[in-house]
Amino acid sequence: MLKPFLRVLSSNEARDRLKGFTRLDRENISICDALFRVVGEPMRAPEDVPGFDRSTMDGFAVRSVDTFGSSESSPALFNLIGEIAMGEIRDLKLRKGETARIWTGGALPPNADAVVMIEHTEQVDQNTVEILKAVAPFDNVIRKGEDFKSGETLLQPGHRLRAQDLGLLAAMGRAEITVYRKPRVALISSGDEIVPIEETPLPGCMRDVNRHTLSAMIADAHATPVWIGIAPDNLAALTSMIEKGLNSADLVVISGGSSMGSRDHVIEAISRHDNSEILVHGVSVSPGKPLILGRVDSRAVVGLPGHPVSAMVCFQQFVVPLIRRLEGEESSHPFLSPTIRASLSRNVASKEGRMDFVRVRLQKKEKKLTAVPVPGKSGMVSAMVRAHGYITIEPDCEGLYKGDTVTVHMFSNWMEEVLEKEYLSGHEAAGRSPGRILTTSQQEKLSRT
Amino acid sequence: MLKPFLRVLSSNEARDRLKGFTRLDRENISICDALFRVVGEPMRAPEDVPGFDRSTMDGFAVRSVDTFGSSESSPALFNLIGEIAMGEIRDLKLRKGETARIWTGGALPPNADAVVMIEHTEQVDQNTVEILKAVAPFDNVIRKGEDFKSGETLLQPGHRLRAQDLGLLAAMGRAEITVYRKPRVALISSGDEIVPIEETPLPGCMRDVNRHTLSAMIADAHATPVWIGIAPDNLAALTSMIEKGLNSADLVVISGGSSMGSRDHVIEAISRHDNSEILVHGVSVSPGKPLILGRVDSRAVVGLPGHPVSAMVCFQQFVVPLIRRLEGEESSHPFLSPTIRASLSRNVASKEGRMDFVRVRLQKKEKKLTAVPVPGKSGMVSAMVRAHGYITIEPDCEGLYKGDTVTVHMFSNWMEEVLEKEYLSGHEAAGRSPGRILTTSQQEKLSRT
Repeated sequence: MLKPFLRVLSSNEARDRLKGFTRLDRENISICDALFRVVGEPMRAPEDVPGFDRSTMDGFAVRSVDTFGSSESSPALFNLIGEIAMGEIRDLKLRKGETARIWTGGALPPNADAVVMIEHTEQVDQNTVEILKAVAPFDNVIRKGEDFKSGETLLQPGHRLRAQDLGLLAAMGRAEITVYRKPRVALISSGDEIVPIEETPLPGCMRDVNRHTLSAMIADAHATPVWIGIAPDNLAALTSMIEKGLNSADLVVISGGSSMGSRDHVIEAISRHDNSEILVHGVSVSPGKPLILGRVDSRAVVGLPGHPVSAMVCFQQFVVPLIRRLEGEESSHPFLSPTIRASLSRNVASKEGRMDFVRVRLQKKEKKLTAVPVPGKSGMVSAMVRAHGYITIEPDCEGLYKGDTVTVHMFSNWMEEVLEKEYLSGHEAAGRSPGRILTTSQQEKLSRT
Repeated sequence: MLKPFLRVLSSNEARDRLKGFTRLDRENISICDALFRVVGEPMRAPEDVPGFDRSTMDGFAVRSVDTFGSSESSPALFNLIGEIAMGEIRDLKLRKGETARIWTGGALPPNADAVVMIEHTEQVDQNTVEILKAVAPFDNVIRKGEDFKSGETLLQPGHRLRAQDLGLLAAMGRAEITVYRKPRVALISSGDEIVPIEETPLPGCMRDVNRHTLSAMIADAHATPVWIGIAPDNLAALTSMIEKGLNSADLVVISGGSSMGSRDHVIEAISRHDNSEILVHGVSVSPGKPLILGRVDSRAVVGLPGHPVSAMVCFQQFVVPLIRRLEGEESSHPFLSPTIRASLSRNVASKEGRMDFVRVRLQKKEKKLTAVPVPGKSGMVSAMVRAHGYITIEPDCEGLYKGDTVTVHMFSNWMEEVLEKEYLSGHEAAGRSPGRILTTSQQEKLSRT
């Protein structure tokens, strides 16, 4: 084993150490299952799409040159020689002054190079149409190969598939695609005091919150959680559960047991494995400082703090980027969250050299959005529940002032109910602990409830 | 049948008409499956959490009063009378000047009201500890019930569950929760020209792109897609497929067949059902105008435009809010997307009275982020693939100027690879069609490739 690296790192330094972990192998899957999976090979178009000049409007196919000069005051008369039904190519060759009825998506007949929208026409009789507006070549037409051309590379490896990318693959006739395997993340909760949620905790014990928050975060990061179990504070038991995790997953995440106390077995349990290394022990973020990143062979073992809030912050900042790497993305960043700008309700101090994540609740006051820091220690999951998102205070900043405009990173992509009603009636709890000094805005809030 | 309502509505007016659709019934599910589901009943805490005063640090439990006045220069000597193991309540009653070793998460012994962090202590011998810093009552302690109190309402109906909310339920010992049923969305593609993607389209035909883009969007909106099939342009066939959709899902979405052409059968097919009504026919958004919203009994039938880009815009603006309502959220809004501010690369004109969604691609230039409108008609799925997000131009605005700061709504929650490399090499296609005028930035881009 190598000696543990004990210097506390900045979050960027810690994320840099994720770069040694490489992408998983690849597999072929149906595009019906490929949303949010990461492309594993360059996708080239096998053919031109569309395969023919296609109308983008309901109207009349024309040789554009025949319409030049037409207008409402001086319409041009065209002979209507037929109709292009959907899904057919008709050998309805237009001659000078001839037109054919066409629908959106229909194939232009030979010689036609534009479509006049139905709104700019007037059908005089069964065989005659007035064109009230000139069109230029290719007006209201998608040309053969205009969407994409045969041989064009449309998606590169490392790109995570969105809905439209699946549409592109569909348009190319690709029913299957090669993607990086979905990472399996083994999850262990550690601590003698942790009991499964179905049990009534004995005095001094706590239900296993982290299993549930972290499983959800793993799923939300498009990976598969593999629950291993609760490890007691016992080196042998933890070592064997890590072993089990390494055998059943691509990455092992342990929550708890990573503080500086003497019961800290995670480092030792990792180091007991052959070919292991401790890459990170401690990151200057708050909450979350006691983060551990280890390596056993080519797999990562991550020790998260036991406090639910700290565990979530560390997961988002360090495990999500690791999952992205394993899945073939080159990024070392957490996912973007929706952000909202708001005015800070009170001064917030921070320690220099440390990245702070401050949980905030949004409130609408006189049509202005205010971010109210949510009091609550990092062991309190309710503090995360009461919050709508968080703000960050950079390491080189000593704090923020009341009234500062801050960027709130939202915990979810829905929120407007927040601004219309308080969906969480428990928020009055914010000011309840004895001795806690309320900010003005909290006092106002309390006086309203 | 009621007469179709033909006035084109604004997007807000159209969304207002979703309000008549009511939430689905409820079901009990495991919290392991409850991420992003919507709470169906108020969740009250059955007990205090934590159930005991709990240490938030590794250190020494003390009666805070005994530490008053201690400092590095004048430490207080304490008798160490034992250790609180994790997960146990020890009857280790502290007397004046006594302390007990405690770990993060441990239960405070009787009489103790604070914890001194291990960093602020010095163990002199087996039975003696120096305390180097005074603590106030409840320092480094989460008090009984401080996270939440018995009887407190923590989550209200209509709230969509995030990771931390599942953690809260876990802390409460709730293994199951009542949620609104997940909406099932029947999906029909319509048009004689549409063929399944496994088939090679005959001349004049197109592969079914919308099935794949819309299925993915349904899944991303936390609903379940139910594929019905491709309906030919034939009133009887479409009517019977809508029937099938109504029988197997909570909402029917049809793409195609909603333009003003004579093959427009969607309105008629909806209206053939007893107790049906057309609520919306046309919305002033671009792309996407020919949106249809109908009602058959209590279920919605939505007709989306056939163009892939228009179908996606309309889905996000009108179907996502409908799914949210069915699932018990009161919101009539699409989900929030991550946003990024950028500088617009060229003038973009818009028609007054219409809400425009302009697809843009982000580029980093001299450390400045630029939003470059992606050329491409609404029938071109590649235009959505080349774009990173969209900007909106409000109905009361005639356009935006080059250099204006715009808010880009991102299509995904990952992006930084965009700024580091072009993952989509096909972007040079942007300027390829004959007669298209390139913007300066496009010319620059082309000259680089």
